Amino acid sequence: MIKTAVLGATGYAGVELVRLLASHPEAKPVLLGSQSYDGQRISDVYPNFRHVLETECEKLDLDKVAQCDVAFTALPHGASKDVIPQIIERGVKVIDLSGDFRYDDIEVYEKWYGQKHSAPELLKESVYGLPELYRDKIKNARIIGNPGCYTTCSILGAYPLLATGAGSAKNVIVDAKSGVTGAGRGLSQQCHFCECTENSKAYKVATHRHTSEIEQELSKAAGEEVLISFTPHLIPQKRGILSTIYINLNRKYTTEELVDLYKDYYKDEFFIRVKDAGELPETKHTAGSNFVDIGVVADERLQRAVVVCALDNIVKGAAGQAIQNMNIMFGQDEKTALDRPGFYL
Amino acid sequence: MIKTAVLGATGYAGVELVRLLASHPEAKPVLLGSQSYDGQRISDVYPNFRHVLETECEKLDLDKVAQCDVAFTALPHGASKDVIPQIIERGVKVIDLSGDFRYDDIEVYEKWYGQKHSAPELLKESVYGLPELYRDKIKNARIIGNPGCYTTCSILGAYPLLATGAGSAKNVIVDAKSGVTGAGRGLSQQCHFCECTENSKAYKVATHRHTSEIEQELSKAAGEEVLISFTPHLIPQKRGILSTIYINLNRKYTTEELVDLYKDYYKDEFFIRVKDAGELPETKHTAGSNFVDIGVVADERLQRAVVVCALDNIVKGAAGQAIQNMNIMFGQDEKTALDRPGFYL
Amino acid sequence: MIKTAVLGATGYAGVELVRLLASHPEAKPVLLGSQSYDGQRISDVYPNFRHVLETECEKLDLDKVAQCDVAFTALPHGASKDVIPQIIERGVKVIDLSGDFRYDDIEVYEKWYGQKHSAPELLKESVYGLPELYRDKIKNARIIGNPGCYTTCSILGAYPLLATGAGSAKNVIVDAKSGVTGAGRGLSQQCHFCECTENSKAYKVATHRHTSEIEQELSKAAGEEVLISFTPHLIPQKRGILSTIYINLNRKYTTEELVDLYKDYYKDEFFIRVKDAGELPETKHTAGSNFVDIGVVADERLQRAVVVCALDNIVKGAAGQAIQNMNIMFGQDEKTALDRPGFYL
Amino acid sequence: MIKTAVLGATGYAGVELVRLLASHPEAKPVLLGSQSYDGQRISDVYPNFRHVLETECEKLDLDKVAQCDVAFTALPHGASKDVIPQIIERGVKVIDLSGDFRYDDIEVYEKWYGQKHSAPELLKESVYGLPELYRDKIKNARIIGNPGCYTTCSILGAYPLLATGAGSAKNVIVDAKSGVTGAGRGLSQQCHFCECTENSKAYKVATHRHTSEIEQELSKAAGEEVLISFTPHLIPQKRGILSTIYINLNRKYTTEELVDLYKDYYKDEFFIRVKDAGELPETKHTAGSNFVDIGVVADERLQRAVVVCALDNIVKGAAGQAIQNMNIMFGQDEKTALDRPGFYL
Repeated sequence: MIKTAVLGATGYAGVELVRLLASHPEAKPVLLGSQSYDGQRISDVYPNFRHVLETECEKLDLDKVAQCDVAFTALPHGASKDVIPQIIERGVKVIDLSGDFRYDDIEVYEKWYGQKHSAPELLKESVYGLPELYRDKIKNARIIGNPGCYTTCSILGAYPLLATGAGSAKNVIVDAKSGVTGAGRGLSQQCHFCECTENSKAYKVATHRHTSEIEQELSKAAGEEVLISFTPHLIPQKRGILSTIYINLNRKYTTEELVDLYKDYYKDEFFIRVKDAGELPETKHTAGSNFVDIGVVADERLQRAVVVCALDNIVKGAAGQAIQNMNIMFGQDEKTALDRPGFYL
Repeated sequence: MIKTAVLGATGYAGVELVRLLASHPEAKPVLLGSQSYDGQRISDVYPNFRHVLETECEKLDLDKVAQCDVAFTALPHGASKDVIPQIIERGVKVIDLSGDFRYDDIEVYEKWYGQKHSAPELLKESVYGLPELYRDKIKNARIIGNPGCYTTCSILGAYPLLATGAGSAKNVIVDAKSGVTGAGRGLSQQCHFCECTENSKAYKVATHRHTSEIEQELSKAAGEEVLISFTPHLIPQKRGILSTIYINLNRKYTTEELVDLYKDYYKDEFFIRVKDAGELPETKHTAGSNFVDIGVVADERLQRAVVVCALDNIVKGAAGQAIQNMNIMFGQDEKTALDRPGFYL
Repeated sequence: MIKTAVLGATGYAGVELVRLLASHPEAKPVLLGSQSYDGQRISDVYPNFRHVLETECEKLDLDKVAQCDVAFTALPHGASKDVIPQIIERGVKVIDLSGDFRYDDIEVYEKWYGQKHSAPELLKESVYGLPELYRDKIKNARIIGNPGCYTTCSILGAYPLLATGAGSAKNVIVDAKSGVTGAGRGLSQQCHFCECTENSKAYKVATHRHTSEIEQELSKAAGEEVLISFTPHLIPQKRGILSTIYINLNRKYTTEELVDLYKDYYKDEFFIRVKDAGELPETKHTAGSNFVDIGVVADERLQRAVVVCALDNIVKGAAGQAIQNMNIMFGQDEKTALDRPGFYL
Repeated sequence: MIKTAVLGATGYAGVELVRLLASHPEAKPVLLGSQSYDGQRISDVYPNFRHVLETECEKLDLDKVAQCDVAFTALPHGASKDVIPQIIERGVKVIDLSGDFRYDDIEVYEKWYGQKHSAPELLKESVYGLPELYRDKIKNARIIGNPGCYTTCSILGAYPLLATGAGSAKNVIVDAKSGVTGAGRGLSQQCHFCECTENSKAYKVATHRHTSEIEQELSKAAGEEVLISFTPHLIPQKRGILSTIYINLNRKYTTEELVDLYKDYYKDEFFIRVKDAGELPETKHTAGSNFVDIGVVADERLQRAVVVCALDNIVKGAAGQAIQNMNIMFGQDEKTALDRPGFYL
């Protein structure tokens, strides 16, 4: 039984980790860290857990974390940077859900985050936790930078075209739509129900931090620098990311050819479901599950591919992916606790 | 391994059965019946199932049903009445999700449904599938009339007050609010997104069939005839029933006393969660799970109890309850595949 | 041209006042009071006003208010009580949207609000601003206690039955469902989109302040004390109140008789639309308009009426009613700026 | 008083026309055409109209249409093509909301619509009803091809960059998100509330007919052929279109420069509101109004503009624009009945 700590257990990513761990046959959430709800049971904060899991939340106590095998850190930025090195020191593996350990190049991090990195040595050691790309490195990692929702969706959607050379590295555009859980549980005017429902908008156009992370991975895929337009949007639903990706093609392709290319590229990936030609993903098909659904269309008129990629931002885009990483790190079947079909309704 | 048939697998109750059975360790949905989607995989109709369950739907074939241990019948009214006797004849147990096998008194059925009952003998034999009330009879039943969402919510909410004599049988009022999955997957103007969102309404005031079913069970609880006002409402959410129940009290009670009464009454019931005094249920706490949340308030000024009861209409109000019944009938732990905390988000 | 001040212009009731005044041919919002957005244009806070109304919001300045004909006070409780007497002193009429000036009996106010009233003399003078009941008094009032959403909906729904003696004063139950604008624009966990959507709940059961206000008016209708169960619920939509009201009947009635009774009672009321027998109101039919839709059903089996009443909580339940009162006070046609059909979509 | 006929009055575009005409001081909807609701009052079909407008809907009768000054045709494709020439013959002006009269080049129409055009002569005469571009021609037109939601939003958003030469005609990408009213009132599985809420998806990728219409206008703006990727998406809200447009810039620009360019370009347009640098449009700011909100960002890193454009698809994208056209055609102030701020809530 893998003993896990969820630090930041009462945020949306944290509580989704707890939900998934609650039915994991080989792991157990033994420690739920929460500054704000210290002393309250998780089932008081999220009453859906009553009769199922009634563990008390507690303030961070590194000695208690030290008794776990792995800590998931879903902490506010800043809190996480001091804590993680101390957890690692105690021999506990870390799967970090923040942006701090996702970069190859510390300068890119410091430029986009506007601050010094606090643990450069750990950053160097950390592994980018996208199992479909780095499964082997994840196996033996001590620290994982678990990719977020926008990045997972955009990277997996664009990767095959760039990695195979079918797509051009120029003029890549990623137009992404996110549900509101992506903004977290904190209060803000824009998340007020009456402001949020019946509303859509773009935000952080041309400046969103995830741009740099997507560019890092797509550049490796393409073997050359890929610079992208990345536009995040907020849409009135709880769960779900839909990325629509535009990539110019290096020669004429039919939709069928592109679908075959994707199906082949991801043929061994359980969590990636490439749609048949003529079908397109919808966020509700992935809600509550760890699946990524990808549809591809060749616009033959323009010699351009339009890729549509959907996933659940707090599962494959956060908690589910973190558990997938944990499964790999601890020698479990990667699908354990994640082979569910999602809610649909 | 219990071999199950889900007849009507592509309706909302049906597909929720398939979802829950897909992660049941001791049961398997081997046969998915669907007239409309014959020959298509369940994962074509509900793409959330891709990579998880890709069984082909098929038209009703009684010989194939005969190879199962139990059939869940979630068929349109009318379809179900001819089919069920033939399934029983073949030695297969039936858990029926329609209203046909829920009545003690055939005359009540015929009055509220406005038609002759097609299988009076089977009706006599059938057991009302509310495990919290009839667990022992369910164990050995061949045919279960699985209660619906409004009835489960209203009966479990009102039962303790009437069964203990704390509440009066006169002037019982049940004001129930239902999510739109309760109206099923069929198309209708009122279920069009643009008509349904930002809208609430009452319907079938004083005439809804479930009235009679609630009265049947509450009368047994009270030991005298209980007649109720039952008003169903449609509210703009997918899942969830909230019943607000008004019962005059036979003497003065405090809220604490009523809460104790409920906690005591349901102390052995895993799926019933009585809220502490001062807390009230919310539909989202039960969404996706088989739990029933109950809050009670004594209005001391009026010597009246207000009971608020929440559940997920397609889980405890349909598919989850059906599986709970199956678990009991086949000697499984009643909680199997149902001990999940729900989605919350 | 009536010069109006809207104090508290950036809350939801306030901004709806501004929206309606912006197309009132005989009134003008010349002063927009806002503590939080002092110095910002209303069109900065609510960008829907750009190119239409770009007035700057300002802190309260009584000398400026003194130049208006009427002030709408939609202030946080507490703020309002000091300000209103000073406005009245300056010869400006006040239409107050708080609960402070709605009571006949100061003791009832002080009991339900748990505090001393700050202006007992003004309270005595104030007129309850429900035009359908007090049109004549409103004409000459200096200060109006403008009724809120729950009270308007519940009083107008129940009034005819109690005023005509058709209904019994005993066992009156009002089960009300409200959209989220009713909770205002302030931030709270329960109004976070992700907590609010797909969720319904009851709150303040047996203790909501509006109970006392409804009882005050219905007692006057019945000519005897009427005590009610009033249960407010929060449902996932922006606008709309739906009150379902249960009243025992003093003799047998058919639905048709009750509908006739209501149609006759309200035959001169433009803003009240009584549904034909067999039809029921829906909140979306009233959204964005000042109309109140009422449907009545006689449950002959139980000798009980079920009345369903719908309105838009921030129009007829706040801003629209305030303008209706203003129209009456200033000799305008009562319907001015309010004779629109609502949005539907 | 302009006498108007609304043919197809009970669809979503039609009923929005009726709503806006109901408060137009100089026009009156004297004839409401509806095949499906012949003989029913508009207030029976849309009860928000009760007490405001209770006109009976009627089947098409050309003699009655002949007594009107203008007919708005919001008919199903096919119905419209036979009817319109006959209306024109009778000396009644036509504002057609279908795609039939929006094309300069009949071949483009026939290619994208897959059929012969039924009235080539009328097509030649017809004027594209985008007042911001063709105000002068609209004044004297007999027949207007009223642009739809996607096209209005995309053309107005992209126009200034292409018309001024700031933007390149190559690699223009329009990623558009639409509310569900855009799909009309007809029933379909995808518009069922339970399928639609909590869901987003792309559709008709690379093949949507509006592509050709946008290309027609943008090519005229650029003075060279502009081919675009146009991807429509369905998002879970009723009203609103948000177009995110990517256009490469011909030299380096700052955001401020682009904002100035847009403000200057649209400086005389009441219905176009260009956001200040740093601000972005949101669909709810335009809901219920005829406004178009545009935000522009220069991605200096990539020398690319990202333009975000929002409008209400059934107002500026259909009914409001049609009335704006009518106002121009009949010498009214263009803003008449359209100078409202929208709902916000």
